[in-house]
Amino acid sequence: MNHYAILFFLGYILRLEAALLLPSLLIALFRGESAAAMALAATILLAAGLSLFSLLGRGKDRSITHREGFVIVSLSWVVMSLVGALPFTLSGAIPSYLDAFFETVSGFTTTGASILTNVEALPLSLLYWRSFTHWLGGMGILVFVLAIIPMAKGKGDSLHVLRAESPGPSVGKLAPTMRRSARLLYTIYIVLTLVEVVLLLLGGMPLFDALVNSFATAGTGGFAIKNASIAAYESYYLQGVIAVFMVLFGVNFNLYYLILIGRARQALHSEELRVYLGLVGVSTLVIALNIRGLSASLFDAFHHSFFQVASIITTTGFATADFDLWPELSRCILLVLMIAGACAGSTGGGIKTARVILLWKSVKSSVQKMLHPRSVKVIKMDGKPVEAEVLESTQTFMVVYCLIAIASMLLVALDNFDLETTLSAVLACLNNIGPGLSAVGPTQNYFALSPLSKLVLTADMLLGRLEIFPMLLLFAPSVWRVRSRRA
Amino acid sequence: MNHYAILFFLGYILRLEAALLLPSLLIALFRGESAAAMALAATILLAAGLSLFSLLGRGKDRSITHREGFVIVSLSWVVMSLVGALPFTLSGAIPSYLDAFFETVSGFTTTGASILTNVEALPLSLLYWRSFTHWLGGMGILVFVLAIIPMAKGKGDSLHVLRAESPGPSVGKLAPTMRRSARLLYTIYIVLTLVEVVLLLLGGMPLFDALVNSFATAGTGGFAIKNASIAAYESYYLQGVIAVFMVLFGVNFNLYYLILIGRARQALHSEELRVYLGLVGVSTLVIALNIRGLSASLFDAFHHSFFQVASIITTTGFATADFDLWPELSRCILLVLMIAGACAGSTGGGIKTARVILLWKSVKSSVQKMLHPRSVKVIKMDGKPVEAEVLESTQTFMVVYCLIAIASMLLVALDNFDLETTLSAVLACLNNIGPGLSAVGPTQNYFALSPLSKLVLTADMLLGRLEIFPMLLLFAPSVWRVRSRRA
Repeated sequence: MNHYAILFFLGYILRLEAALLLPSLLIALFRGESAAAMALAATILLAAGLSLFSLLGRGKDRSITHREGFVIVSLSWVVMSLVGALPFTLSGAIPSYLDAFFETVSGFTTTGASILTNVEALPLSLLYWRSFTHWLGGMGILVFVLAIIPMAKGKGDSLHVLRAESPGPSVGKLAPTMRRSARLLYTIYIVLTLVEVVLLLLGGMPLFDALVNSFATAGTGGFAIKNASIAAYESYYLQGVIAVFMVLFGVNFNLYYLILIGRARQALHSEELRVYLGLVGVSTLVIALNIRGLSASLFDAFHHSFFQVASIITTTGFATADFDLWPELSRCILLVLMIAGACAGSTGGGIKTARVILLWKSVKSSVQKMLHPRSVKVIKMDGKPVEAEVLESTQTFMVVYCLIAIASMLLVALDNFDLETTLSAVLACLNNIGPGLSAVGPTQNYFALSPLSKLVLTADMLLGRLEIFPMLLLFAPSVWRVRSRRA
Repeated sequence: MNHYAILFFLGYILRLEAALLLPSLLIALFRGESAAAMALAATILLAAGLSLFSLLGRGKDRSITHREGFVIVSLSWVVMSLVGALPFTLSGAIPSYLDAFFETVSGFTTTGASILTNVEALPLSLLYWRSFTHWLGGMGILVFVLAIIPMAKGKGDSLHVLRAESPGPSVGKLAPTMRRSARLLYTIYIVLTLVEVVLLLLGGMPLFDALVNSFATAGTGGFAIKNASIAAYESYYLQGVIAVFMVLFGVNFNLYYLILIGRARQALHSEELRVYLGLVGVSTLVIALNIRGLSASLFDAFHHSFFQVASIITTTGFATADFDLWPELSRCILLVLMIAGACAGSTGGGIKTARVILLWKSVKSSVQKMLHPRSVKVIKMDGKPVEAEVLESTQTFMVVYCLIAIASMLLVALDNFDLETTLSAVLACLNNIGPGLSAVGPTQNYFALSPLSKLVLTADMLLGRLEIFPMLLLFAPSVWRVRSRRA
């Protein structure tokens, strides 16, 4: 384990966070929010100060392997959240630091689960920071770092970081170098976000609201700045724009790259895209028919159904209606969509559509093997054979996912809520969705949970966002052994 | 596909069922239950008549492959249940044939989920038949057939049947021939059942009650003949005997064989046994501490905790207390135990402890591979390496299991019960447990569910008991293609 490389990376992350906090500080100064301004300034100074530790690693060997990659990613997310939570507590907006940490992890991991009972009481500068964490966490903080600095020497080194942070079963390279790939990703991300901001402005949404709501949509996060979430904007157009963009941000970004370089046909033939859009379509239809009795009109039923399906399958968590009051069938469909999640390589969470497809295909092939023991069938995705390693790690992922869900459920159960609350709280956090059902439903929040449950759910959010393994490896003793030179 | 062989087997099964109904007919005649006697006699005649179709296959080639093995097992279970349900409806005890079919499938699959609101109203002869289906289904109807007749010519042929019907990831041979293995299994099964009957008689339980309760314990079924289930016997001794025997019937029967032939040390070193007993111990302890506030004494808490843990992990489903009123932690632990289930090769249901261990080990090995990509580690069980095929089919099993649970949940959700009911009903049937939580909790029953939900749950019970694949293959078109001679 190369401790210098890790220190160097963490220092860079802290300086970056200090810089990213500046816009919030400007808003606070501009709006005269003095407590928030003091808290933000103090946090910026602290982060900058702490980052000086990284100078220890100056001039030392900074090469990393996959192990350091995992550790850097995991630690960066934890450190950024620990620091990012400070402004909330220092300004008195969220008195408990544990609550602030929960809220910040929920932001960076794009979960959107909140402990705030009255979000509208927060100063605008902190609301901005809260939503901005979604935008940063969506595409990945370290992808951002890779996009702007030439950090590691070998090409393979940064791939380790990208792999550990990117969602989905496998990372394809977009461009020949990782740095170019990361820049491309962020360019697409920024452009899509700006288009949404403009469309929301055209619909009459105030600039600040358009910005922060676009941040939360782009990261598929779901923090709203109104207590009524997106239901506060009583406009089919505004809600429709947000719903469509949620679906767009749930698509694998590689496909946008393919479209950019003129290979749109290849992009549209993606199996994952088709299954993803198919799931959105079928779920919207079934839920709309299921809730039409509760709705003002059939159009209204389809509108709310589409918004909620888009919000849940992309793991955003925005709400326009209290789906906790919908019939059991609709609630169960949403629960299943929570788990399935968006496409790999998108900003969404969950298990990812690609994994669901891979699992389905490996099951089909196993059944065929039982019928025709001597037949050999290769599992393909988009026409290309899938490596046995990817299949194996997909199945392993599923099993660990279930084990973590069960362990978390047992710990949260100590709070003695009902099963709907316990189960949906764990799934909503592990899949980075935000609202669950019952006591943590769309009109409720996580404030009432015990400190233990909040800690467990915070860990679940990080495990979910980093797709489990990087976080788990932090606790493997062999990871921390000092490397004998370049083993 | 060799249709003659299938017809021949089914005919044998029907004749066997006719014979197995005779004790109930005798009870009905002896007790003067005329409606039940008429219904039982009619069913016996019908089964015997239908079985004559099997004469069509006389003298024809009766050799089978694994495909016929699967089909025979699946069809036998369905046919036996269809016929076994007749006495309930013909006698008027359960007016709806769908309800009677649900009850009979629940019996044969050792689920123990009931649609009866007042079980004490049933004539004793039908109560006997209802509990006897548990005993028959526990060890496997076809294992029984194999034990008494030399049916197939090759040794491998009957192995196909045994494999399809026996629970767990892999079937080890006990004795050199399948017929001897099957006889050994049934001998152990009968002796253990008799010991329980005697111990219950010693505690003052009436003979009839001791018999049927032992049937339900041995099959890990859970049908009680009292509305209050086992709580009706207000005796720590009687409840304790039943609890201990539930645990014993949840142990892999191969271990009893090993003890019989003097290799007790090897049996006690079984990893599965240790994990299974460990789960029982830890769960009992945690739940006892969790419910001690609700209990008359600490002993009482331990007593009810142990009984309920034994009942749920072995998927029996007997109740001495309304665990639906217990704190959420206890309920969640029971929900997890529902899924884990008993040992492979026992009469219990669920995923099986052996599979849980295999999944855990394959996850551990995958994580190690991520850390040390060049290391090669063989997964072992009881010191012996596990074949890659077994591992693969275990993971496939898990995925299909989840898919079936999700699909069933969505269909049962149409009844618009709460999530606890929907989810626990599916899990309780798919794992052959019986009672779930909330509206299908231990003091409730499945009567209120819609016909669609009852059909779905009936299918789940069969899928769970036959471990999914034999049932699924019934719906694969290629299975039904006529075999070109001996392919």
